[in-house]
Amino acid sequence: MENASSPSPPQKPTTLLTFPKALATSSSKIKHVIVDFAIKAKSIGVDDPRRIVHSLKVALAITLVSMVYYLQPLYNGMGDAGMWAILTVVVVFEYTVGATLCKGMNRGLATLLAGALGIGAESFASLFGTTAKPILLGCLVFVLVGAATFSRFIPNIKRRYDYGVLIFILTFSLVSVSGYRVERIIELAHKRLSTILFGGATCIIISMCVCPVWAGEDLHQLIAENLEKLANFLEGFGGEYFRITEGDKPSLASYKSVLNSKATEESLANFAWWEVGHGKFLFRHPWKQYLMIGALTRQCAYHIEALNGYLDRKTEAPSEFQKTIKEPCMKMSSEVGKAMKELGLSIKLMMHPSGSASAIHMESCKKAKEELNTILQTVMVGEHDISETIPVIAVTSILVDIINRVETISEAIEELAKQAQFKKSKNTKLDKKEKPNFLNDGGPPDPANGGKNRESVAITVASLNKG
Amino acid sequence: MENASSPSPPQKPTTLLTFPKALATSSSKIKHVIVDFAIKAKSIGVDDPRRIVHSLKVALAITLVSMVYYLQPLYNGMGDAGMWAILTVVVVFEYTVGATLCKGMNRGLATLLAGALGIGAESFASLFGTTAKPILLGCLVFVLVGAATFSRFIPNIKRRYDYGVLIFILTFSLVSVSGYRVERIIELAHKRLSTILFGGATCIIISMCVCPVWAGEDLHQLIAENLEKLANFLEGFGGEYFRITEGDKPSLASYKSVLNSKATEESLANFAWWEVGHGKFLFRHPWKQYLMIGALTRQCAYHIEALNGYLDRKTEAPSEFQKTIKEPCMKMSSEVGKAMKELGLSIKLMMHPSGSASAIHMESCKKAKEELNTILQTVMVGEHDISETIPVIAVTSILVDIINRVETISEAIEELAKQAQFKKSKNTKLDKKEKPNFLNDGGPPDPANGGKNRESVAITVASLNKG
Repeated sequence: MENASSPSPPQKPTTLLTFPKALATSSSKIKHVIVDFAIKAKSIGVDDPRRIVHSLKVALAITLVSMVYYLQPLYNGMGDAGMWAILTVVVVFEYTVGATLCKGMNRGLATLLAGALGIGAESFASLFGTTAKPILLGCLVFVLVGAATFSRFIPNIKRRYDYGVLIFILTFSLVSVSGYRVERIIELAHKRLSTILFGGATCIIISMCVCPVWAGEDLHQLIAENLEKLANFLEGFGGEYFRITEGDKPSLASYKSVLNSKATEESLANFAWWEVGHGKFLFRHPWKQYLMIGALTRQCAYHIEALNGYLDRKTEAPSEFQKTIKEPCMKMSSEVGKAMKELGLSIKLMMHPSGSASAIHMESCKKAKEELNTILQTVMVGEHDISETIPVIAVTSILVDIINRVETISEAIEELAKQAQFKKSKNTKLDKKEKPNFLNDGGPPDPANGGKNRESVAITVASLNKG
Repeated sequence: MENASSPSPPQKPTTLLTFPKALATSSSKIKHVIVDFAIKAKSIGVDDPRRIVHSLKVALAITLVSMVYYLQPLYNGMGDAGMWAILTVVVVFEYTVGATLCKGMNRGLATLLAGALGIGAESFASLFGTTAKPILLGCLVFVLVGAATFSRFIPNIKRRYDYGVLIFILTFSLVSVSGYRVERIIELAHKRLSTILFGGATCIIISMCVCPVWAGEDLHQLIAENLEKLANFLEGFGGEYFRITEGDKPSLASYKSVLNSKATEESLANFAWWEVGHGKFLFRHPWKQYLMIGALTRQCAYHIEALNGYLDRKTEAPSEFQKTIKEPCMKMSSEVGKAMKELGLSIKLMMHPSGSASAIHMESCKKAKEELNTILQTVMVGEHDISETIPVIAVTSILVDIINRVETISEAIEELAKQAQFKKSKNTKLDKKEKPNFLNDGGPPDPANGGKNRESVAITVASLNKG
């Protein structure tokens, strides 16, 4: 291993000191690896200090539960079953409160159900005499375990009760089979259940009371931050594409994490479902609507990914055609970015988006689009090289697409604001001024469509694309 | 629950039979739910019969291990520790061989390591007398559990050894703490280890010998199928966009699953890493290269998603401008689709892509693009409505982007073919004919670039976009 990664220094005469030297090299290398590892670990901790807190919480829970073994009175009460308490803490304690609750509840309920079924199966099999009993029990275990394992493939069960089914299989096999030997099964079950409850309760209490990490809150932040990342790209895109600013590429590329956020969002929403009300979030907060906004945001990110392709391919200097449409194009991009940032902010602050400045930005975005349309109509009459204009036109078309998507996101956020009863904004800037007619310029809201005027909006912003 | 989902039949007089009726309704509803569930479960089984086989395999493994309890001689040998064998089977047996091996190895090694450390800690703490011992042990457990929990946040550890760290925490706590009570710790450890080995070996043998599901093979198929899904879209896109065929929408939309395939691909590649050689795959098959192809395929899928947006927005009849460019555009789309299908097939059959028909299709794709370029140059001189032409031009530009992406995918597959030593094609059609000059028309391969001529290809296919 050391040889592979250590090229020998060139043009040095070999000496008799090779072995000690190699030893020194390898020891310095080990030092290097350890230092590297420490730096990496430190950065992980600094990135999100809640990870360090979580580690301390788990250590605390396990040390507390270990007291079961240390302290004589408790030990007499629980006996060796106390190790089930440790086992429960180790497997149930998860990073977020929701995940811990999910696993804890699953474990508790599945143990109860499988324990009862196991005792039932054992008693039932006992009716048939000692010869038939093991065969009958074997068949029962085979059938139930097979069915339970298969049920783990059903999406609804997999999503919320996967761990419960696993524990069901485990407990049922253990109880029904160990019953064949141990006569004091009820007493054992009682002890095991009480230790599992003790372990589970320790987890849940520590998880919820000591610096809790709520899956719901994380989902809420993630959705808002994803919007912000896309907004950053859009705000920076114009400058980068028309070579105004020498780009802050890493900040522009941060949107890429949004492309693959589906799995994280879904698991957070699943865990949030188990959480009790906390902070600004009530017990049945509309987490599904967050998933909806997340999906729409991702849709938008796909379009941004297509847009990003044109950044990589831009030439040294902007073409004549680019210069002609620079102004409205840059405005479109930056204004839709600002609107998106406002939408993200309205989620973050749990304010109703209708009062935010996003509508103003969308309005000026629309104006820029009309301007662009006018320029294109006068300019494109054969003045420019076709191979030069095509990618630029594609960029404007994709930008318009993105504006449409942001419209849909805005509607979804309004729906969320309604469901989760976000505060109405106290922003007097908008209340005093006449509200921008952006959302209503297709006529009055359609009552049959729940008061929304999605169509009118779509038609307005798509006019450039559709004609 | 029943009330919520059963609207009462309108304008029917209430009778005295309400209660029996409601009972009948609810019982028919329960029947309905059960039938629904059964249909769903059946479809899951029919979709992939390996799921049923897996369920039977797990049931078989657990029933076999239960024999430890049934048969007297085995029971005397292992005692109550036999339940650890059942526990091991339940938690270790996973769907794919790779996942089972990963969990089994992690469990075995972590148990050994933590067991040894636990015994060491217990002996060390014993040196300080009975008063200091529990305090010292508590501190040791706290520190080690905290550090181990934190290490689970480090990506490299999380990816391959997450379960091992969990088992390490569990075993270390159990051994070091239970040692405080149980003097026969070495004997216990021996028994527990042997039962865990017995359970793990049962899992691994059944998993590998009875209808094995290899993660590597699944990854291989998934990557090939994803390419095929994108190809289907591209082949169908032209007909749909120019209203030639009334679309087979569901088949076109199948590409959407590719957008979110990252998590699946990565977990399959992780599990494949643990797998021994099987079938056509050697022990160190280049699984990483599959991830690379998967990432490029997803990139392509993002562009297809942008393209798909234009399908939803198409008007009743094609515009004049669309009619003008219909022929080359349809050809580009269908030919790039065919090329992609060939690439997918070459992965599926493990044949070198250079011998496949994909190069021919790419060649005719290129011709269609040049044709389009010529038409656009003559046609666009102010003859058409600008708002009508913009989306059409954007479509052609995105199509060209997709062609570039397919080029890159083709290169990545060639790299895979080299690393995994795919068979050279026996396709005489290509060997006899002069090979298409598509891959070489930018000059001879650049030796400094490993013989690849990526740049020349990129320049050729991007000429429409860049000019």
